[in-house]
Amino acid sequence: MTLHILATGGTFDKHYDELTGRLTFAASHLPEVIRRARLTAAVELSVLPLLDSLDMQDGDRQRILDACRASAAKAIIIVHGTDTMRETAQVLGTAALDKTIVLTGAMIPYEIADSDALFNLGVAVGVAQTLPAGVYVAMNGQVFAWDRVQKNRLLGVFESV
Amino acid sequence: MTLHILATGGTFDKHYDELTGRLTFAASHLPEVIRRARLTAAVELSVLPLLDSLDMQDGDRQRILDACRASAAKAIIIVHGTDTMRETAQVLGTAALDKTIVLTGAMIPYEIADSDALFNLGVAVGVAQTLPAGVYVAMNGQVFAWDRVQKNRLLGVFESV
Amino acid sequence: MTLHILATGGTFDKHYDELTGRLTFAASHLPEVIRRARLTAAVELSVLPLLDSLDMQDGDRQRILDACRASAAKAIIIVHGTDTMRETAQVLGTAALDKTIVLTGAMIPYEIADSDALFNLGVAVGVAQTLPAGVYVAMNGQVFAWDRVQKNRLLGVFESV
Amino acid sequence: MTLHILATGGTFDKHYDELTGRLTFAASHLPEVIRRARLTAAVELSVLPLLDSLDMQDGDRQRILDACRASAAKAIIIVHGTDTMRETAQVLGTAALDKTIVLTGAMIPYEIADSDALFNLGVAVGVAQTLPAGVYVAMNGQVFAWDRVQKNRLLGVFESV
Repeated sequence: MTLHILATGGTFDKHYDELTGRLTFAASHLPEVIRRARLTAAVELSVLPLLDSLDMQDGDRQRILDACRASAAKAIIIVHGTDTMRETAQVLGTAALDKTIVLTGAMIPYEIADSDALFNLGVAVGVAQTLPAGVYVAMNGQVFAWDRVQKNRLLGVFESV
Repeated sequence: MTLHILATGGTFDKHYDELTGRLTFAASHLPEVIRRARLTAAVELSVLPLLDSLDMQDGDRQRILDACRASAAKAIIIVHGTDTMRETAQVLGTAALDKTIVLTGAMIPYEIADSDALFNLGVAVGVAQTLPAGVYVAMNGQVFAWDRVQKNRLLGVFESV
Repeated sequence: MTLHILATGGTFDKHYDELTGRLTFAASHLPEVIRRARLTAAVELSVLPLLDSLDMQDGDRQRILDACRASAAKAIIIVHGTDTMRETAQVLGTAALDKTIVLTGAMIPYEIADSDALFNLGVAVGVAQTLPAGVYVAMNGQVFAWDRVQKNRLLGVFESV
Repeated sequence: MTLHILATGGTFDKHYDELTGRLTFAASHLPEVIRRARLTAAVELSVLPLLDSLDMQDGDRQRILDACRASAAKAIIIVHGTDTMRETAQVLGTAALDKTIVLTGAMIPYEIADSDALFNLGVAVGVAQTLPAGVYVAMNGQVFAWDRVQKNRLLGVFESV
């Protein structure tokens, strides 16, 4: 089974810029992460524009949907910011493609101590191969249907609605 | 859904002992790993004797089977050494319990750079919740049925048989 | 010889707050760092208010000077933000205490990948024991006199003036 | 001032080989470490045969002495195993070259969590520039003269004799 991973930015892929002292985006960490995961299945990686998900516009979500539609893979993992992961999931869920699409991200960037990025990607890669076609959010070790999930910003966790 | 995680040792949980310069076992890393994964489901952790899986005897596998049998959880993740992961999977698979049991481990210890431990645990936690009852091995981002998997020691990867 | 380490904040000690997605200050990393360094000399740690050095006022520098003056140690290491490290060094240098005072910091926070924090602290701890009384800045593996150093913000390195 | 760094192996530079599950030597970590330290002084790196210092023979120490003698630098840092660091220091100390030579190493390999490698190298780089000509051991944040140091194997620390 081919896995198609789409990098779209978010906390997962933030990078510390030592000249400005700010967290921003540079090259995606996904190539390194994929190598580290020692995946033996065929993997395709598409690095879309890397954005803080609070900055995502309708056009950005449409581009993600287009990428899912154009993909030859049946299993798609989208690395995405947590703040509007639900909104992108809704755009994808409404489109009802015949693929298993799993959105994930991180509360702490991959390159910062105690990051959940690698774990979350593992959950997403796992369930993208075992769940029926549909759109899901994988965070906090749980899998949520796209239309029954929200981020609890106070606690910093995803929960069912 | 309650997740039951069994720590049994293996490369995942190896610890560098600075007085002897050897990789050995001390306290399991699993409590830290579980916290880092920010799991929101109920999680039970059982730390069984931590062993290099090459040192596992029949009695050790029996103890793991007993722990699975005694568990109230329907989803069980076993952190295990890779060298005899297949043998333990066969003991558990033959027992045909009505639970989803996923064995995983690591090629590089959790505390060493470039470790796959966190990713592998993510895959296992994900598919333990989505697969039907049975015994599986989750390594290299793939999920294998217990009776159709082997470790390719030359390449250091798991593959179907 | 007793080493007295003063934590005053700066990039070295920044912490990623996963609820706000910002780099801020929480508990200092210095207790962990000191333990990790396996120091066998007597070490005293004073955690002063942790500040971004761009936010430091005259009163803050005065507090640091007071702490140096009050210290019983002959060797003092100050962990400080890089942006105004020179300004604090000038306040301390002008006071001409009979102690060896070494300011250091980091271009990347201790808890972020590829950090120079631990290395820089090592340089500072080393030269604080070998240099004559005076005030110094230790960054980029070099030691600068307090009145002949500046940060080159374009390149992100310290240099002689 | 030019710094000359000699890599000779030891715990500092050990690498985990995932196919054998053993700590061994591959490419030295020093090029990465030197880049990470953001050194602005001129640095020359010589990677000598990487050895566990328990395996070092007279010829190996002679090769290190030859490298020090041939070096154009006045400040030399030697990354070395801890178990026979003292023996190599004695060979170098007896030769009484007109250079500042600092031996350092690590109790935990650079690539393993909680490593002291980066800190120790910082101490060595600092004092190599500030001490008079002679041979020194820099471990545990302290600097020892070559003929007054030993490793306390029970405690895993260096101490004066």
